[in-house]
Parts: sequence; C-alpha cells; structure tokens
Amino acid sequence: MENGVSSRPRAERARRAADVLRQQITSQAFEGGRLPDEHTLAGQLGASRNAIREALGLLRTEGLITRRRGVGTVVAQQRYGHSLDRLAGLAETLLGRGTITNEVRAAHPVAGVPDAVARRLELPPDAGAVYLERLRRLDGEPLSLDATYLPLDLGRPLLECELTDQDVFVLLERISGQPLGRADVAVHAMTAGADTAALLGIPAGAAVFAIDRLTRLADGRPVDAETVHIRADRLVLQATLHRGAAPSAP
Amino acid sequence: MENGVSSRPRAERARRAADVLRQQITSQAFEGGRLPDEHTLAGQLGASRNAIREALGLLRTEGLITRRRGVGTVVAQQRYGHSLDRLAGLAETLLGRGTITNEVRAAHPVAGVPDAVARRLELPPDAGAVYLERLRRLDGEPLSLDATYLPLDLGRPLLECELTDQDVFVLLERISGQPLGRADVAVHAMTAGADTAALLGIPAGAAVFAIDRLTRLADGRPVDAETVHIRADRLVLQATLHRGAAPSAP
Repeated sequence: MENGVSSRPRAERARRAADVLRQQITSQAFEGGRLPDEHTLAGQLGASRNAIREALGLLRTEGLITRRRGVGTVVAQQRYGHSLDRLAGLAETLLGRGTITNEVRAAHPVAGVPDAVARRLELPPDAGAVYLERLRRLDGEPLSLDATYLPLDLGRPLLECELTDQDVFVLLERISGQPLGRADVAVHAMTAGADTAALLGIPAGAAVFAIDRLTRLADGRPVDAETVHIRADRLVLQATLHRGAAPSAP
Repeated sequence: MENGVSSRPRAERARRAADVLRQQITSQAFEGGRLPDEHTLAGQLGASRNAIREALGLLRTEGLITRRRGVGTVVAQQRYGHSLDRLAGLAETLLGRGTITNEVRAAHPVAGVPDAVARRLELPPDAGAVYLERLRRLDGEPLSLDATYLPLDLGRPLLECELTDQDVFVLLERISGQPLGRADVAVHAMTAGADTAALLGIPAGAAVFAIDRLTRLADGRPVDAETVHIRADRLVLQATLHRGAAPSAP
C-alpha cells in the first residue's frame, strides 16, 4: 500500500490536493470560510507541506481563496450552485441568497439578426427580433452577462416590463400565457476575452462558463436564444444524474 | 430598430459574434468544418469585418478554430458532447465516435486517504482506499484526466481488471453485482495548472472543466469519489432541462 506522501512530482501531488480542497470549498466544509493551516492540511490530505502550498497557489489562481500573512487562508467568496436538474432562471435559483440586480445594457428590436439565431428561433430571415443584454450582479458584484434574442411578438411586450429585477423566464410565461417547456443547454468552459472580462470584473484569461441555451414554450416553440457568460469563481453547476434511461419530461 | 452594425465598441460586437459562431461550431453547422470568409460571415452576422476578425481571434484563443493564410478558417477539431441527462461514463458516451484508450497513471491501494474523501465515501478514517488515475485519449489525443478513490472491497477486484479500455462504471456494476444508482455532480470551469496542462497537452492557463462526481450504487452506497479534468476545447456538456419539478429517478 502506498503512503499518501509519494515519490510523484510535487506538481502532481499539488493537483490532487487541490482537487480535494476545491470540493471541500464548494461544499462549504470549512467553518467560517477559514482553511486550516498548512501543517493541519498536510495531515488531513496525506501530502507534504510543499505540495499543500502549491495546491493553495492553484486555488488562488482559480480565484477560490485568498492568502494573507497573519490572516491565513480564507475562502474568497461564497460560490453559488446553479442546478441543472430543472429549467430555472439564475435569479429564481439564487432567490434568497443575495440581492440580485440587472444592469440592462441593451434592450431594443434589431433588424440584423444573425442567420444562425433566426434559424434557431425558427424565424423568417428578415423577421427581426428583440435583443436583450443584461449584466447581472449578486450583492453588487458582477456574476453573469446574459445576451438573448427573442421573437418580436414576445420581445416587444417584454421591453415594456421592469427588466432590472425580473427573470426573463417569468416574464415570458406571463406574456405568452403558457409555461415554458424545455431548454437545450450546451455548457462551455473558456477563458474570458477582454470585453467579457471587463464587464464581469475579472482578469482577462480567467475562466468563465459560456452557456448556450435555447428555451421553448410548453407548445414547443423556441422563444429565447441566449448565451450566458458566468464567472467561474462565483458559480458551480450542479446536477444529480441517474443511471438508466434519461427521465422523461414531467 | 437598430441596425446590426451598431455604434457599440468593437470588442463588444466581437464578443456577440463569437457567441453565435461558437454555437454554430458546436452544433457542426459548418460543412466540412470550414467557416465562410470574413465578408460572408459579416453579412450572416450583421457585423463589420473588423468585428468578425476580432471574434475569430477569440475563438482561436479558445482553441476552437485555426486560421491559416491560403487555407482559411477551419474548425480545429470535432467537439464531443457529453450529456448530463443520464449517468454514464465518458467512454460509454463517446462509444463509436473514436478510439478511446486509457493510460493508467496510478492504480493501487492507498493508506493515506484524504479525510474529506473518506467522509464522502462513508469510510472509517483508517480504512484505506484504492486510488486510480487515468489519462484518457480519444483518437490518440488527450481528452481527460480522471482521478478517483474507491472503497477497498470494490477497488481491489477492480485492480485485477483490464483498465485501459473499460469504463470504471461498467466494472463497478459487474464487481458489485448491482447497477449504479445516482451521482451528485459539481461542474467547475477553471484554467489548467501546470501539471494538468502538461498531461492534457494544452497550454497552462487554457480552460478546462473540473467535474467532481460522487457515484452511488443502486442501494445508495457511495463507491466512486472522483475528479475529472476535461479539455474544454474538445468537449461540451449538454443537457435538456425541463420546467417544473425535477424529474424523479427512473
């Protein structure tokens, strides 16, 4: 049986230790958001202090912890879990976990809808659409940038609504008079470009999620084609998966 | 109605164009993996050629396209979709889409199981576990690094199995004599540290998914605590979400 402190390169042992600590940080295992000292962590993880120090460096680069002399190692900020088990807007998901505000950066009809977007929304090529772009803040700090195209018949009434503190999903259901049905979601991990980084208040090159989501009404009509960029240091996507066939729609 | 070519800063228009193109690349909308020229893209996206050029620069940084004079802009490689709708191993998901091989980097019992891992697996503190680390290649190119802890009673027989071309999920079901039940999954987006990047064959600082997954047998017992690092330029996570309550287990 190998001992925990192995002859593997330190970078490798650091990576393994960082994996364990990341999971603990995400599940809020550290009381008061304060990590034990390096010596204690080394014992708990079966790793050397050098490997622990390097692991903490990785987690700092990920934006998950801060380290300061005299203060120690603390969790940088609470990370929020966004469930993929059910179709819900981010504001619905984060209800009661902080104050959410949306800065409306664009909200207007556009004539020049990209061809690919028009096809996804099953619109005729020259139909036009409403473009809505919002920067979402949670407790004042940027969390996500949401850019979406909506068909004119639903998008125009939506422009009359209060958009700074309401989810588009809830408004679409109210305007259309029917519940949403399903959404097809593709989750990308990427490094933030200059524009996205500046808006989200992170360094260019930091990791973000980019989520493409096409949402349909209950009757199957696609009504919301969006890309959401989300700060990866503030959000974790969560799901409970089941073996066997995919559960069908409720 | 605003025209597609707006007075917004070019970086912003580039980001929007990149969002549309990323979705198209992922859904394999470009025949033969070849993107139209800048002029055509500008027309299709309602953006200026300068914005298109900058958007293509973003996608190149993400590792999604290559651009070469005389050749044009081509999709760097096919991206694979990994569904979050059902609990499946990566090899099961990618069945028939390429040749999968696993380089077994570690496969042995360990005495020093990190405390947090032992708790997740509901093991007594000194029980030990089997540690298994595999680098997965798809058609010869690194795709993911999978590090997992398994309880000894299942992990020891697993060490006797052929691990280079079989999913751990399938082997666990065979050894335990029961199907897997559910898994709790947390998906992180992060930039790759030096060790992870070197193993996956990407530049340090490139985006990767880190997925924490705790998998249980049908009887509820947790048997597989793993972290999978996946190249974000090769994989997209996909799900179909439904409005209303989360569907229950099948």
